[in-house]
Parts: sequence; structure tokens; C-alpha cells
Amino acid sequence: MNVFDRLESSVCSYARSFPVTFGKAQGATLWDTRGRAYIDFLAGAGTLNYGHNHPLLKEALVEYIAGDGIAHGLDFHTEAKETFLESLDARIFAPRGLHYVVQFTGPTGTNAVEAALKIARNVTGRQNVVAFTNGFHGVSLGAAAATGNDLHRSAAGFPLLGVTRALFDAYLGPDIDTIDVLDRLLEDRSSGVDAPAAAIVETVQGEGGLNVASARWLQRLESLCRRHGMLLIVDDIQAGCGRTGTFFSFERIGISPDIVTLSKSLSGYGLPLAVVLMKPEFDQWKPGEHNGTFRGNNHAFVTARAALEHFWRDDALTREVDRKAELLADGFAHIAARHEGVVVKGRGMMQGLAFGSGALAETVARQAFSRGLVIETSGAEGQVLKCLCPLVIDDAELTRALEIIERATQVALEVPERLPNPERPLKKVG
Amino acid sequence: MNVFDRLESSVCSYARSFPVTFGKAQGATLWDTRGRAYIDFLAGAGTLNYGHNHPLLKEALVEYIAGDGIAHGLDFHTEAKETFLESLDARIFAPRGLHYVVQFTGPTGTNAVEAALKIARNVTGRQNVVAFTNGFHGVSLGAAAATGNDLHRSAAGFPLLGVTRALFDAYLGPDIDTIDVLDRLLEDRSSGVDAPAAAIVETVQGEGGLNVASARWLQRLESLCRRHGMLLIVDDIQAGCGRTGTFFSFERIGISPDIVTLSKSLSGYGLPLAVVLMKPEFDQWKPGEHNGTFRGNNHAFVTARAALEHFWRDDALTREVDRKAELLADGFAHIAARHEGVVVKGRGMMQGLAFGSGALAETVARQAFSRGLVIETSGAEGQVLKCLCPLVIDDAELTRALEIIERATQVALEVPERLPNPERPLKKVG
Amino acid sequence: MNVFDRLESSVCSYARSFPVTFGKAQGATLWDTRGRAYIDFLAGAGTLNYGHNHPLLKEALVEYIAGDGIAHGLDFHTEAKETFLESLDARIFAPRGLHYVVQFTGPTGTNAVEAALKIARNVTGRQNVVAFTNGFHGVSLGAAAATGNDLHRSAAGFPLLGVTRALFDAYLGPDIDTIDVLDRLLEDRSSGVDAPAAAIVETVQGEGGLNVASARWLQRLESLCRRHGMLLIVDDIQAGCGRTGTFFSFERIGISPDIVTLSKSLSGYGLPLAVVLMKPEFDQWKPGEHNGTFRGNNHAFVTARAALEHFWRDDALTREVDRKAELLADGFAHIAARHEGVVVKGRGMMQGLAFGSGALAETVARQAFSRGLVIETSGAEGQVLKCLCPLVIDDAELTRALEIIERATQVALEVPERLPNPERPLKKVG
Amino acid sequence: MNVFDRLESSVCSYARSFPVTFGKAQGATLWDTRGRAYIDFLAGAGTLNYGHNHPLLKEALVEYIAGDGIAHGLDFHTEAKETFLESLDARIFAPRGLHYVVQFTGPTGTNAVEAALKIARNVTGRQNVVAFTNGFHGVSLGAAAATGNDLHRSAAGFPLLGVTRALFDAYLGPDIDTIDVLDRLLEDRSSGVDAPAAAIVETVQGEGGLNVASARWLQRLESLCRRHGMLLIVDDIQAGCGRTGTFFSFERIGISPDIVTLSKSLSGYGLPLAVVLMKPEFDQWKPGEHNGTFRGNNHAFVTARAALEHFWRDDALTREVDRKAELLADGFAHIAARHEGVVVKGRGMMQGLAFGSGALAETVARQAFSRGLVIETSGAEGQVLKCLCPLVIDDAELTRALEIIERATQVALEVPERLPNPERPLKKVG
Repeated sequence: MNVFDRLESSVCSYARSFPVTFGKAQGATLWDTRGRAYIDFLAGAGTLNYGHNHPLLKEALVEYIAGDGIAHGLDFHTEAKETFLESLDARIFAPRGLHYVVQFTGPTGTNAVEAALKIARNVTGRQNVVAFTNGFHGVSLGAAAATGNDLHRSAAGFPLLGVTRALFDAYLGPDIDTIDVLDRLLEDRSSGVDAPAAAIVETVQGEGGLNVASARWLQRLESLCRRHGMLLIVDDIQAGCGRTGTFFSFERIGISPDIVTLSKSLSGYGLPLAVVLMKPEFDQWKPGEHNGTFRGNNHAFVTARAALEHFWRDDALTREVDRKAELLADGFAHIAARHEGVVVKGRGMMQGLAFGSGALAETVARQAFSRGLVIETSGAEGQVLKCLCPLVIDDAELTRALEIIERATQVALEVPERLPNPERPLKKVG
Repeated sequence: MNVFDRLESSVCSYARSFPVTFGKAQGATLWDTRGRAYIDFLAGAGTLNYGHNHPLLKEALVEYIAGDGIAHGLDFHTEAKETFLESLDARIFAPRGLHYVVQFTGPTGTNAVEAALKIARNVTGRQNVVAFTNGFHGVSLGAAAATGNDLHRSAAGFPLLGVTRALFDAYLGPDIDTIDVLDRLLEDRSSGVDAPAAAIVETVQGEGGLNVASARWLQRLESLCRRHGMLLIVDDIQAGCGRTGTFFSFERIGISPDIVTLSKSLSGYGLPLAVVLMKPEFDQWKPGEHNGTFRGNNHAFVTARAALEHFWRDDALTREVDRKAELLADGFAHIAARHEGVVVKGRGMMQGLAFGSGALAETVARQAFSRGLVIETSGAEGQVLKCLCPLVIDDAELTRALEIIERATQVALEVPERLPNPERPLKKVG
Repeated sequence: MNVFDRLESSVCSYARSFPVTFGKAQGATLWDTRGRAYIDFLAGAGTLNYGHNHPLLKEALVEYIAGDGIAHGLDFHTEAKETFLESLDARIFAPRGLHYVVQFTGPTGTNAVEAALKIARNVTGRQNVVAFTNGFHGVSLGAAAATGNDLHRSAAGFPLLGVTRALFDAYLGPDIDTIDVLDRLLEDRSSGVDAPAAAIVETVQGEGGLNVASARWLQRLESLCRRHGMLLIVDDIQAGCGRTGTFFSFERIGISPDIVTLSKSLSGYGLPLAVVLMKPEFDQWKPGEHNGTFRGNNHAFVTARAALEHFWRDDALTREVDRKAELLADGFAHIAARHEGVVVKGRGMMQGLAFGSGALAETVARQAFSRGLVIETSGAEGQVLKCLCPLVIDDAELTRALEIIERATQVALEVPERLPNPERPLKKVG
Repeated sequence: MNVFDRLESSVCSYARSFPVTFGKAQGATLWDTRGRAYIDFLAGAGTLNYGHNHPLLKEALVEYIAGDGIAHGLDFHTEAKETFLESLDARIFAPRGLHYVVQFTGPTGTNAVEAALKIARNVTGRQNVVAFTNGFHGVSLGAAAATGNDLHRSAAGFPLLGVTRALFDAYLGPDIDTIDVLDRLLEDRSSGVDAPAAAIVETVQGEGGLNVASARWLQRLESLCRRHGMLLIVDDIQAGCGRTGTFFSFERIGISPDIVTLSKSLSGYGLPLAVVLMKPEFDQWKPGEHNGTFRGNNHAFVTARAALEHFWRDDALTREVDRKAELLADGFAHIAARHEGVVVKGRGMMQGLAFGSGALAETVARQAFSRGLVIETSGAEGQVLKCLCPLVIDDAELTRALEIIERATQVALEVPERLPNPERPLKKVG
């Protein structure tokens, strides 16, 4: 029995979908230990926007390590953090006219979400928080309460409290503006919905199935938050760092979140890093109130800085992503046009195909994997095949991947239900 | 205004105690950017048991990075994880006759604790968990409920639920066995304490003030857990990885925890890593139920493996730690003997001095820093000066540090209350 | 200072609206201690369906007391309980083909609701419960979580947990069937709405503002409950006991609730009494699990039995209520037709007028009181003037009361805003 | 099948212990429908301190009903309430120098407790409440959280939250003052016990097994409450109204509770009534925040007033109770002296005998019942035979009852384990 079977918990999920052992990686390519190459359309569940082991970032990191730069720094002031903050300011905040204070939390998305919820609750003195259908915000107890997926919810073994569920954009179809529903509940003094501290929202729900919130809906959400004394928290952990073209997913939408959570691709190299950005007036933390051993992961600061300096000094990456997003949209539209019931979803380089069932999407993903493409599903039933390829993927790989998906779809739909429909499709979430 | 003042949140605490910018580090030495060296008696709040940037670990890491080894692997099977698991098995589990299944959680201690609590609740079908006075288990909502410190508790902005507080060893003095109190409550059908899923305990409470649970008390706790159908969770995040001499802090005590959480020094290099070890019968996870983007931090697997292979192939480190622990004990006893009201606390290389007040301990720490020693306080009032130096510190540095502490204590006690007694001493927790 | 001002808590609300001291009462008439008579359109917030001190009930009660019948019987078998149960069976259950088991809870509505929620949670093993916007189910902690009104919610001083709020019939206007919204959320595995143990609903929301659930909506709710493994709880505390014509408010709707809560008019005489009716398969209580000192209020059993025997041996009362409900509807329609923005609400003898604001409705109520009519407002803003007169009121009184309301409305609307619009209109709830 | 078997829920408990149907009652005597008389040592679980159907109270009640006095008055000012308040002031508050504001809650003890907890939480802005081992405060969700018994706790089907459990007097034996334990936890900033809004305590725990809090312990509890900014709530529902000799159970102890809950014997006639007494500065209720249909049970006001006027215009009843309490103490001591392992517990006319097991106490109770005495058990295991006879019982009955108990004990102990030891002894609580 191999060491994984012997020693690793049954909680693993990706390892089941891709039953090989990976060794090396570069750009958009993964190699297993037998030397087989795969195009990576998962990219660490959106953590590798700049691809695996980007040479410039690698160089900066190796140099830092070689020079005995501090690896672990708690919340110390360190050179690596200083230069990261300077780059964040110069490359991201300043050009966008943003004024945020940065909190380094434990280096995981869920930890950033936990901190964001605490801020909102403490600043407003309210305990309720609005989260949306199909949202995913993490699985620690506070964040899990905001997460919609019942696999994660029921795993808590304790009721998930303090969150009122609201309806995401278009949840009831195109004719009902779900902001009106929330507004009605908040206006109504006997609706039974307690005044919320905040609304936490993803502009594109990655795990929820590539559901896109429209600009107008997000603008109305912001306005509702202002009207009801709530903070607006954008969880940009998966959609941020350029995934939708701009650095923040909300830049073109014209909203001004009070709090933003970032993680995943922030370090640029797949290293653990997470931050909460908050408007200065909400930085009411007392020293040490929210802490965590690894909030000073200086290796991540080094690669994060290098990524900011390389990719965000101009709008080249944004234009690149916009262009490839169109390629993806076209490619998916082409497939969808040929197969009834297949629908294109998402925006930017966070697009995919919704199939009629989780079993079908799963078959497509497995067929794709057998053809050398690592790709996953998302959505409540795992029914959405989701492309999260590196933004820096080259066009040839992108085209090749689309061909594989097309072929896999064809095979899956021609031989329907070749796989047993699992009573409970596995959810694989980054 | 420097970038930290401009951009970083007020939540920082260590940076206030040590108002310099650190750049490089090696072994037990930190250098600030102006080139001043400090002996590190904080060691990443116990995260750097093998010192900063240990050469062998560094070499393994740089080689891995240079070879484009996968950095970020979700829960993929990877070569780096495989070899780490093999080393964990060969160097830790096998020699100790342990049979644990390993869950890689999000790479922070609090995430491992969240997972451990979920396991216990799901396996037993009970919702209550016993945690102890002065315990520290993290600040995400589920873990924070188990944490005792009110700075962290009140920051939640929401009631912390699902935990019954029990009394740590000797909490009521030497004459009362606090296990009897808990036992009485659990035996009594109308005590109002609901049947617990588990007890979570640190064998030495680091943040709580270097409180040591006796072997007998821990044995009785284990027996109580068995009798009441509860799992025994040892949170070995700070006391594990050799800090008390043996790899696990409970090895010499003869208990067999059902679940163990590890993090901090596990990667050996200060890189984010956390695991839950559980007896195989409790590995009842469904795939993906507990997830997290960074649970496959392969860089950390590489350094963790190197650390296991280098430090744990024999008992040399254990003997080394035992020897230095005595040096520390002697040094501290020497100081305590000279100053009334100063008491030695802790065990292994997790020892320190309890002062009469947090203000006093704080003064000692500041005096020490001005003399080139980075050291922190812990305990409810910050009244305990805590040594968490690298286990690999050389004797000369250790001696020098003890001299600094002695001198700092002298100064602090001679000129009492030079610093204003803060109404609320800052807590700095890793 | 009178004894009320000196000694009674500021929590009183009705006493503020009707600042007199009442002494005697008979049928639909109240007299204050100065001998002034008032028509009672409040009737104990729906507790006096058979009027004050009904002669037949009085006779039975006095005879029972004179004969030293047991007053207080815990959950003993007593003669008074026995004959009450026999009447309940013969006059209510049998003719309607109902098979319910009866639980006598503490004699308040909120206590019956607490018991009903426990049953649903224990029977299903689920913790979540669906309650509706503008619902009122009581103010003890478990029931308050199901109650919508924020005055009562915020008074808890602790988060109200375990309830998911759903949208009552027509909450989003006539075009959206809110059952579809709930169904969508329950079908969706990542909606974030945990599987509920039950839905608790009033067929007509008395405190919520006389909102009427349509037959079709209730039928669809029942069907949704069946489909999702949830119990259907009808809280018939205010709408039951004939208030809408039939004994249960849901009789003509053709649904079969799993659990029904009854209180208010059940004793017939205004004496404290509350019961939970549950289908036999859900009677899984262990002895004593839910208790309460006054669950054997035998005086109430005596009057309740007399009321059942007198009023429910045939359909005379139902026909009477149907007839008077039309009188009310006509009278209110007449008023509404003359004043823009005034709308008739409710059904049966639970009807009223919605005004544009709580301040306006309050003015109407005060004008009515000054003309000898005791009537109250309900709804989120207190904007609905609510008629809850005794079912046995004679036509002359009914007509007189309608004339008073008409005149009061006229005065209030002619001299708008004579009363300051209170920032927070007082809610008065029975 | 009789109507009880057919229609009444399995939740009944007393009806199982006393499987007869009761009809009439007078003083300390109950008669079943077959005419058999029983001495009542249960007295409505302490609700009938003045005996069943006391002639003077009966007279007042019948006269009131005959004169069409208002039965149900919501929170109206009524003549009956007015005269009750005047008597409460004149007979209880004034002679004792007490200044309390009176809140009429829903007429059950649990409702009064719910209100008391809300007051404490709102006044202090804290959410945690301290309750004690073996306490019983009711079974609605908020009160149940304070109740210790696991039969009631587990029935909730939802976690019981917001309460920290502390140790009642002598819980750890005579050598440990449990106030010190609580004090230590509250002083300690990292104990994990959040600052409480209040402590709620019974001076004698009736359901908990007749555990008596010493004067010194209660005084220290009061002082601890003052020191920690907590309100002191005495739940005097069972021990109040003269049960221990004085009207309030704490009068001779010299403490001044901030809030007192009263119910059970307050109406004097077994009619539902409950009040919260609070110091005026804590009467911060907004109108209607806490409500309930039956908070104006005017019949109960009438009998309550008559009881106050008759029994509390001088200290005759107190002297009577003191005298009979000695008779009880002597009688029980006599029995205890003859049987090893039998211990006298309680104080005033709230005394009993602790047996080695619940099964044994149950046998004694059943033997007593077969000899014409209604008596119940209490305590975590039902191991305490509890005397709650009317205070007005005459000496002959008292003596007769003691003889029955003596004989029943003898039989039970001579023929041990004649009854199967139930795996889970039924708890019967009023």
C-alpha cells in the first residue's frame, strides 16, 4: 500500500480526481512523476494566476533564501514586508486611487474572511452578516457560516450561526432583482432579519458555479449597504489578482468595498498569503486581537512583490486577460452551440460550461484528464466545468485545452451516463 | 510616514514591542536592517525550533525550487508530500509505535484545531467540547471558542459557543485535582454540562503562561475521556516538534491522544504547515468536507522532510534539548532566587519567569531588547517572560541570553514601575 | 403617585394606550372603574372569542370552584382534564377526522411554540426551522427566534438562533409565489439553507398585520414540507378557536398540519391554557422532558370544556362568524373606499384597516378609544388597525363599533399628524 | 382505552407515578374519583403553599367571578391588579424595606426567568450568564440553558447557549468554597469565562435535590456579583412565598438580589401567575418588548391578594413554618438515624431524605403512595424524596405523613431492589 493510502486522510478530494503523483511544474504545465505532462486548467484552484514557478518570481525567491532573508516573521516589520507594501501601494492602490489599510492574517483565505467578519461586527456592533446563496468563503467555523455548500456546512458538527442567507444575482431568474428582496427584508421592522453588520459577496462565485454578479446588482448591493449601515465586504480571494482582467474583480464595476479579502494568487507563486484590506476608518483593531503564527510568511512577500512589480506596472496583463477571456468565451460558446443544455458561464478567465448534471460534468472532466488536461467542476451539484488556467498560458496551450474539452464533451454526451451518477457528487474546492 | 505606519493595520503587536525592521536571520540570530544582531528567544513564537534558515533545510528548499518542484499542490499527491509522509512515518510514527492518519489542513494552527473539533463532533455526534482555562488554540471562530484569552474572545464580535471551560492542572492550587471537578460534573446528570465530544488540551500552555500539566493529571484526563466517551485532543502546536525534548510533548507521559494537532515548527523553516493526526478509526471525513487552498504547501513538505531526516533519525536532539532545558532551568532559578516573587515556570525549552505583574514582565522584556535579546511575555496579564529560543541555539548564546535576562530583571526590579502600568497589557501571541 | 406608576414596570404597553383602570366586563363590553363602558375590539388580543365572562362558562367555573374541584394539577389525571379531553375529541377531532395527541404545556402560547419546535427538532434530528416574515410566535428565546418583530428580537440580548427566515405569502407582491423561492433554496445543495426540521406558520398573521396566507400557498407549503422531510407546524394561537369561522383556521384549506399550537381562546374564559396537538407518530416525548408548573390549570379545563360543548356541538358559531365577517368586511370596505391609501386586510373576524403609517393608525385607535372603543394596531409599523372583537358580539355593538372606526378615521385623516409621529411606534402584542 | 391513553402525550410524568384520577382537594388532602384520600406532600410541586382551595381565597375568587370581574386583562390597569400591587407593597415590600418594580410576565416560571435573563443582558450589555450545577429554571430555550438537568437539556434539540456553569455551594465538598473557584475564573483574563451579565441562583435547589446554599456562600456570591458588575438574580419560584419560613427565601441571609423571580405559590390558589421583581434602576424595558397573552390573569391577582392579606399581615405564618420545619427535620432525622446511607436534606418546609439511589427513593415514593401519601423525588438521579407539603398542613397530617414515609422507607430498604432499577429514572419536575 502506498504511503498516501496508508497515511493520508480520506478527506482528500483532488487526489481522487487526478490519481497520479505530480512532481514538477512550469507555467501552465504539470508533470507527473512518470514524466507525463498535463495542461493545468485548475491552477491551484485559482492560486497560480502567473503560472507555476514563474522564472522571475523564482529568481527573487531563491535569491532571498540564499541571502538568509527572514522566512518567518510573525508581524515584525521586515524588509520583505516593507517592499511588498510599497509595491502594493505603488502598483495597486495608488493608480486606482484606493486607500486601504492592510492586515496580514493567518495565510489562508478562510482566516482573512474570519478577520473581515470580526471587523464588521466590531465596527458596527451588530452580529448578523448577510452572505449569498452558493457563496464560498472557507470552512473554519465563522467563515463556514457564510459558505453555502452543505457538504462543508454539515461537516461543522455544530450549527453555523450569525449569517442571514440572501439571494445572489439572478437566483430567481432574470425578472427579479434580488437586491429588492433583501432591501424589503431590511426595511421591514418585523421581517425577522436582524440588522446586518455587513454583506459578504464574491463578484463571480467560483466554487458556487461561476455565477456572475452583474455590475448593476453589485452597485445596488453597495447602495443597499450604505443605506442600512452595513459594510460591504468583497471576497476577492478567487476572482481577484487579475483573474477577471483587472487586479480587483470589481474595478470596472465602480463600487468601493469597505473591506476586501485577498489570498490565493496574491503571492504569485502559490505560497500561503492572505490579507484583509479595509478602509482606514474601520481599522479599529487592538494590537494582537486577531493573530496567527504564519501571518508573516516572508517568502510570500518576496514573490508577491515580484509579481506586482512585473505584472502590474502597466495594463499589459489586463489586456492579455481580456483577449484570452474572449478566446475562452468563443471556445466554450462553440462547444455549447453544439450540445443542447450546455451553457457558458463566468467572466474573464474564470469561465466554464454548465452541464445538465454533476455526473455529466464529472465525465467530461475525467475524459479531459485522460487526454492530458487537469480541470475541475464546481457548483452545487458539481455541474459546472470550470476553467481556472494560468493567466499567462500561451495561446497554443489554450487552444489545445479547448480542443480537449470539446472532445471530452463530445465523448461524454455521446455515451451518456457511462459513469454511475453518484448519489452525492464529490465537491472539490480549493 | 513609513509604509508600515501608512498601510499596516493597528492589529500588529510584536512590531510594537520590537520597533525595528528585521532583514536577515541565521540560527538563533536576527539582524535588523541597520545590521544590529539580536539573540532570538521568541523564534517565531515557537515556530523556529531548528533556528532560522537552517543550512541543510535551506539547501533542500533551494534545490527543490530550482528544479521547478511543485510549489502549490492543493491536496494532490506530489513527490514532496510523498517523501514527507514517508519520513514522518519512518522517523516519528514507527519508532514510537504510533498509528495515525494525517490530514493536511489549511497551513495554520487554528485551521488544524477547527478540523480536529469537527472530527470529534462528527465522530461522537456530540456538540460540546471541553477546553481549559488559559488555553490558546487560535482565533478563527471555532478555535477561538476553545481559547481562553479575553482579548481574542471579545474580538469575535459574536458569542463563542460549543465549549465548556474546565480547570487546567493546578488551577485551584496543589491540593485540588481539577480532573475530579470535571469528572464530578460529567458524572452528574444535572450538572448542566452536556456530554462532550472531546477535551482539547495543551500539555504546556505556552500563551497561557507556561503552565505545565503534570503527567498524572494528563493520564487522569485521558482516563476520564475514555470513561465518558470523549476524544482526547492534544494541541501540540507550540509544545510539539521537540520543544519539550521529545518530538511530541506527551511521549514521556504515556498517554495516547486520539487526535493531535501540529503546526509551527513542523516545516522546520518557519513555512506555513499544519496537520491533524488522528487514529484511523476517527478518519471519517468525506472527500473535500474540510478543505483549504494552501493545504498542499510543498515547500513546507520539503523542509519538513529535511528536518525530520536530519533531526529525528536518532535521539541526539532530545538529549540536547534535555541538557539545555537544565541550563535554562538553572539560569532562571538563579534569577528567581535573587528576586522575591519571581518564579520559574514551564518545562523543556519552554521555560520562563513569572513576575508579579504584566507591567513588570514587560519592563524586563524591553530592557532585554535594548540589550539585544528578543523575548516576549505570555500569560493572562502578560506576566510571564517566556523563552522559546531555537532548540539548536549554541551554549554561548544561551548563556549570553540568560545574562541579559538577569540584568534586565535587575534593572526592572530596582526601578519599579518605571513604565506606566498599562490598564490592559498588550498580549502578543504567535 | 398611583400604584401602577410606583410599582409596575415600564414594559407595559396596552395600559399606555388605554389609560384607565378596568373593573368589570361582560360579553363585548368593558367597564372602567368610573363606570364608563367600552366596546372591546381587542378581546384580550384574541383571547376572548366567546366574550368576557360568558354566563355558561362562568356557571361551570363557579360550580367547580365551589365544589373544591382541583385547581392545580400538574400533569395529573383529573376529572376536569378528562372531560375536557373527551369534549375535545367529540366536538373537534372526531367530526373533522383528526387524529392528534394532546400535550399540555405551560399555559402560554410561547411555551406551546417552544414545545412544538423541540418536537420537530427531535423527531427529524435537524436543528434549523423555517419561520416567516412578520410571524409572531412568542418571546421566550426559542420562540422569539421564530418571531419577526425586531422590538421583541432585540430585547433578547442574545442572538436568536436556529431559524431561517422565509417569505410569507405575497411578501414580494402578487406575481411571485414565495413557496418557489423557499423550494429553490431547499433544493439547492449550496444555497446555505440547512435542511429544516419544520416550517412554522400562521395562516393569518395577527401581530404581523393581518396578512392572510392563501389556500394555495398553504397547500404548496404543506407539499414542500412533505417533499423536504419537514414537519408543518400551524401556530393557530390567534387565528384558531373559531376566529376565522371554523375551529381551526386551516380547515377549509385542506391541509393537514403535523403539529398545531393552540392557546388564547382555548379556555374560552381568558384563563391561561395552551396545548400542542401532534400527529401520534411524532409523540416521541420521554416523560417529563418538557414540563411546567401550570400545565394542569384545571379551571381552564372546566371553562374550555364548557365552551367546546356549548359552541362547537354544531356549526352555528361558524355560520355566525361567517356572517359577521361579511359585516366587518363591508364596513371596512366602506371606510376604505372613502379614504385613499386605506386598505382592508385579514379574514374572518380577524380583519382590519391598513393605513399609510403607524402614526395614522395610532391616531385612529386613540380617537376610537375616546369614543368608547378599545381597539389596537398591529403590523411592522403598527400601521394596521385590527379588529379582534368577541365572535359573540351582537350586531348592534358591531355596527356601533364600525361607526366609531369610521368617525375616528375621518378625524384622523382630516387632521393629519395631529399626533407626533413617534420615531418608533410602540408595538402592542398579546 | 381511556381518554388519557388515547389522547394525551407520553410527556406526562406525574400521572405515571400516581396512576389515579384526582377530582377534589382541600387543604393538604387530595381525593381521587373513587373517593380515596391522599395527603399531598407534593402540593403542585410547591405551588400550593396555602393548601388546596383555601376557603378565604376561594371566597374572594368566587365573589370576583360572580361579579363579572375582568378575568383576562393583558397588561391593562385593572382593579384586581391594583389591589394586588397595593397588598404586595404593603404586606411584603414595605415591611422588608424593599424597593422593587414588578413585571408581570407570561404566568409561568420559565417565562419570568426568560424575562430576568433579558433584563440582565440588556442592562449590562453582556451575553453570558452564570447558572449553577443542579439548578432548575425552566425549559423554554433561554431558561433551559440555565437548567442543569440533562433530560430537559437534551430535549431542546438545539445547543443551549449563553450560560456558564458554576459550582453550587458545597458541590466539591465542605472544604472548597466554590465562590472562590468562580471568582478565580472571573478575575482571570484568560480563563475563557466571558464576563457575565448575571448569576442566577436558587437558595434551595428544589428540583436539584434540596441542596441548600449557606448564608455565607450566598453573601459571597452577592459580593462577587457586585465586584464583577453582574446582577444577582434569585430564582425564588419554588423556595419563595414562605416555603422556607420567610416570604422570600433570602430574607434571613441578608442579601439584596437585583432581580427576583416569583411564581408557583404566588397566586395562593395554584393559578398561573409569575412576576419579575427588579430594582428600579434595572427597569429599562421599552413598552411591549417582553409580552405574553396571559400576563394579566386577574383571577390570580384576586387570590394572590387574598393570600397576602391573610397570611402576610403578620409573622404568624413564618413562626408556623419554622415550627413545622423542625417537626419535619426531627421526623426525617429519626428515619435517617435508623437507615444507613439515608441523609436529611433541605431547609424550612422544603426538606427530604437522600437515598443511595434513584431506584430506592422511587420505591419509597411508591410505597408511600400505596399508603395514601403523594410524594415525589428530585435530584440528578431522582434520589431525594422531597417534602413540599402545604405550609398550612395540620400537625396530625404531618405526623401521619412522616409515619408513612418511615414505614415506606423501612419496606423499601428491607426488600431492596424490588423494583427494577430503571436505566434512566424518570424525573418529575413541576
